[in-house]
Amino acid sequence: MRPAATASALRSLRTAGRMSFRLACRWQVEPSRRVLGSSIRGYANASGPPVGTQVVKLTAESYPQIQRDSRFAALTDQDVAFFRSILSSGAVLTAQDEDLAGYNVDAMRKYRGQARLVLKPRTTEEVSAILRHCNDRKLAVVPQGGNTGLVGGSVPVFDEIVVSLANLNKIRSFDEVSGILVADAGCILEATDQFLAERGYIFPLDLGAKGSCHIGGNVATNAGGLRLLRYGSLHGTVLGLEAVLADGTVVNGLGKLRKDNTGYDLKQLFIGSEGTLGIVTAVSILCPPRSKVVNVAFFGLDSYEKVQKAFVKAKGELSEILSAFEFMDRQSQNQVAKFSELRRPLDNEHNFYVLVETSGSNRGHDEEKLQQYLEDLIENDVIEDGVLAQDETQLKNLWTWREGITESLAKSGGVYKYDVSIPLSELYQLVEDARTELQDKGFKIGTEDAQIVNVVGYGHLGDGNLHLNVAVKTYDKAIEKVLEPWVYEWIEKRHGSISAEHGLGFAKKPYLKYSKDEGVIRLMKEVKKSYDPNGILNPYKYI
Amino acid sequence: MRPAATASALRSLRTAGRMSFRLACRWQVEPSRRVLGSSIRGYANASGPPVGTQVVKLTAESYPQIQRDSRFAALTDQDVAFFRSILSSGAVLTAQDEDLAGYNVDAMRKYRGQARLVLKPRTTEEVSAILRHCNDRKLAVVPQGGNTGLVGGSVPVFDEIVVSLANLNKIRSFDEVSGILVADAGCILEATDQFLAERGYIFPLDLGAKGSCHIGGNVATNAGGLRLLRYGSLHGTVLGLEAVLADGTVVNGLGKLRKDNTGYDLKQLFIGSEGTLGIVTAVSILCPPRSKVVNVAFFGLDSYEKVQKAFVKAKGELSEILSAFEFMDRQSQNQVAKFSELRRPLDNEHNFYVLVETSGSNRGHDEEKLQQYLEDLIENDVIEDGVLAQDETQLKNLWTWREGITESLAKSGGVYKYDVSIPLSELYQLVEDARTELQDKGFKIGTEDAQIVNVVGYGHLGDGNLHLNVAVKTYDKAIEKVLEPWVYEWIEKRHGSISAEHGLGFAKKPYLKYSKDEGVIRLMKEVKKSYDPNGILNPYKYI
Repeated sequence: MRPAATASALRSLRTAGRMSFRLACRWQVEPSRRVLGSSIRGYANASGPPVGTQVVKLTAESYPQIQRDSRFAALTDQDVAFFRSILSSGAVLTAQDEDLAGYNVDAMRKYRGQARLVLKPRTTEEVSAILRHCNDRKLAVVPQGGNTGLVGGSVPVFDEIVVSLANLNKIRSFDEVSGILVADAGCILEATDQFLAERGYIFPLDLGAKGSCHIGGNVATNAGGLRLLRYGSLHGTVLGLEAVLADGTVVNGLGKLRKDNTGYDLKQLFIGSEGTLGIVTAVSILCPPRSKVVNVAFFGLDSYEKVQKAFVKAKGELSEILSAFEFMDRQSQNQVAKFSELRRPLDNEHNFYVLVETSGSNRGHDEEKLQQYLEDLIENDVIEDGVLAQDETQLKNLWTWREGITESLAKSGGVYKYDVSIPLSELYQLVEDARTELQDKGFKIGTEDAQIVNVVGYGHLGDGNLHLNVAVKTYDKAIEKVLEPWVYEWIEKRHGSISAEHGLGFAKKPYLKYSKDEGVIRLMKEVKKSYDPNGILNPYKYI
Repeated sequence: MRPAATASALRSLRTAGRMSFRLACRWQVEPSRRVLGSSIRGYANASGPPVGTQVVKLTAESYPQIQRDSRFAALTDQDVAFFRSILSSGAVLTAQDEDLAGYNVDAMRKYRGQARLVLKPRTTEEVSAILRHCNDRKLAVVPQGGNTGLVGGSVPVFDEIVVSLANLNKIRSFDEVSGILVADAGCILEATDQFLAERGYIFPLDLGAKGSCHIGGNVATNAGGLRLLRYGSLHGTVLGLEAVLADGTVVNGLGKLRKDNTGYDLKQLFIGSEGTLGIVTAVSILCPPRSKVVNVAFFGLDSYEKVQKAFVKAKGELSEILSAFEFMDRQSQNQVAKFSELRRPLDNEHNFYVLVETSGSNRGHDEEKLQQYLEDLIENDVIEDGVLAQDETQLKNLWTWREGITESLAKSGGVYKYDVSIPLSELYQLVEDARTELQDKGFKIGTEDAQIVNVVGYGHLGDGNLHLNVAVKTYDKAIEKVLEPWVYEWIEKRHGSISAEHGLGFAKKPYLKYSKDEGVIRLMKEVKKSYDPNGILNPYKYI
């Protein structure tokens, strides 16, 4: 459909009393919003790697320069016996349990640890007893939530004991007037949001892995995701935390108050500390009322400049109802199309695509604002074509074209993932420069014989957050060497962040200096030393 | 006007195409929004206490149990000469300067310190050089912003040197696409907001003292104020800080990125640390687009239960455009009326009053939502009477009835101020119980011969934040003894906070244990010790 035609269609539809940017998307199947994302769940807590896929190389073999820290003790039968004595049956997995393998491999199947023990405590007191013993014995520990992280932070590097929070999964309280939720760390994000939905509220965070990830892990990694544009960061919405320190001390900071200026806000250090300062066991969080009306539009544009124009207009015209502004490049959408059974939302290909979501309280008002916005984009030649979801199914299907990118890329083999913050004007330049850099160094992209399957860019434009993904047939040190530290140097020059929302984990630890200056890194090391003097919490990572 | 009459007026006005909850407020004068608040400015940076008011008693005399810490050195002529050598002329005030006195007295005129030196650095480097010298010499320091705090945190207790940030007051940068502002700590809130207004943005914080307070002070004290309901806490909106540590180290954490997950979020410790960990010299903050349309309604209700009903309905019906929900009791409004030249907005007195503000992007939509909300309140007998501002002047005047409470109380003599968070259902009970407690202990309230002029309650209902104010002719230890720790024990029983937004400062330090448990207080002390081993920063306060 040409812009002119769309504009005239708009006019005629408006006389019929209801705007339709395009009458409907012609969906062939009716999958759920997470039709592509759902199978990601398998990796984490299931029994080992999926059948039919290659065994993941041990991290210790992939990175021979990293050595096991000799300060840590080796696990003994006495240790295992002790843990069995304090935990309920089924909460202690050893090499005899075939489930163990799944806890050693990360969601990207890039890292594999050698833990011989997984502990699944059911209470904060059990977490405390575990850490007290580990600290006394100098046994290293990896806290693990839903194991959906993308930087290798939630799996062991060597023989660290995995402490899974999966069994600490109860809602503790919810106040239906204030919207304040207190819940165990192991509650699954999607289930928690469903609990809130039934009460007219929403969890102030949403991300592709919601079916598996834990809210404790979300907080420990300061997850960003799809609703940050609207509801802000977890540093603002988390009101309190309960955490267990390395020596077993339980810090009870589960305040249920929106405002409390009585002392240093210590909980903030745990938000984004990736399990290196303590284990988050419960969260108190302010949940906003769930919007009664959600609309989604999806459109194609021919340049990144026009994507930026559409964003500035969205801030001005959609304003308080704007809840997501996601952009995807042509390559990322072609990748999703390759593995999806869904028919593409737009007839023709475009260089860029944008998904705009609005969330508000009045259907008529929201649709009028969105209509005005889209008309404005068409009249000003900002977009080439677009569709507007007409019902919940279409809305979910449109989201699939954004949320399904991660999994469609993973089907290639491996993915080098860069999750970066860059000033908006230069955001997409990184993707183009990366393609050039790889080709200049002799790598083909996307051809039959190429090792590199695709180089794509997409992300949360509203937050200045780009995901640069390089999909490869198999992980290859030669490709990694072209990309790193090249990508990080590119970002450092623009004062960006080498990790916008994925965190540092194992993957980004060596590159911290590209985002933080020496003085700040020194202060961070002091904090780590003070909270975890023996360094038992998530070693070899973060800092 | 009776509810029924208002409803019929509504109906007739609606046919005229534009809703008017009440045709207009009949204003007699046209003062600015801060007509009452503006004279507060005088106290802080002007030349000493206002003429004609009593000299404020020295803090050291009011609280003889607090002793000067003998670890601190006494100021020498050599110290003064050193500061003169590194700072520009006019930046060093000594006992010879008559301006000095103003820096020793707090905004409530309750505390008076004995500083003989005030330093007004113009750059971060100067702040660094000052602290390095003070730390080496063990000279105690009070960082001071606009000196508008309400807990005696910004003035010396004994002879601490005042470091005023007033001359560090430049906007460093502003990005008109992302809305990210970087500015010096000493920028005045109102001037900063005006700068942003000219560019279509808003500072995500607003409070009565905006004409004097500094944005650095706002961040250092984690100010809450009037827009928290809409834009969230500073922990979410502040993106980065520049701060100088006690030993003069400059921590450059002025990130301009909405998302950055590369390490511990150390800046968070400074937000709300009240100058005890370092001096904030610059702030990077995310500013939202300024709403095109702002509406204010003001109504009277007969019970606190109905105030809560009106709030729950506001969350549901005004939803994304709700930007303030303030409540005031009858006593607070009578107090404002006593000192205001404004005619009262409503004809009759009511037990409670609510000010609702909406901020949105579409006049028609916003007015329709507000109309629907107010009709609903009238039809369900929630409110007794109300007015809707018809223009900017009326809007500002309505706000005066909320923002003018503080100053109208101060005219009595002194005010015991309690700023607390309590679960919503019990919020106002504290005010009623406080009146009973004072009367039971033999104090009269509000009569000609009474020492207590008024006991009022008002605050940010949307945040669960009550201001209980006890206005007295003069500060009186006997009254203080009835109120403290009685108020704090009352709050502790309900797991509230003894300081929702005002902070700890000098006034609340002894009562921290009512809001924080021992383990948390121990961790806080470790943080203080680690950042400021000599304890020179804002001693005798906070922790």
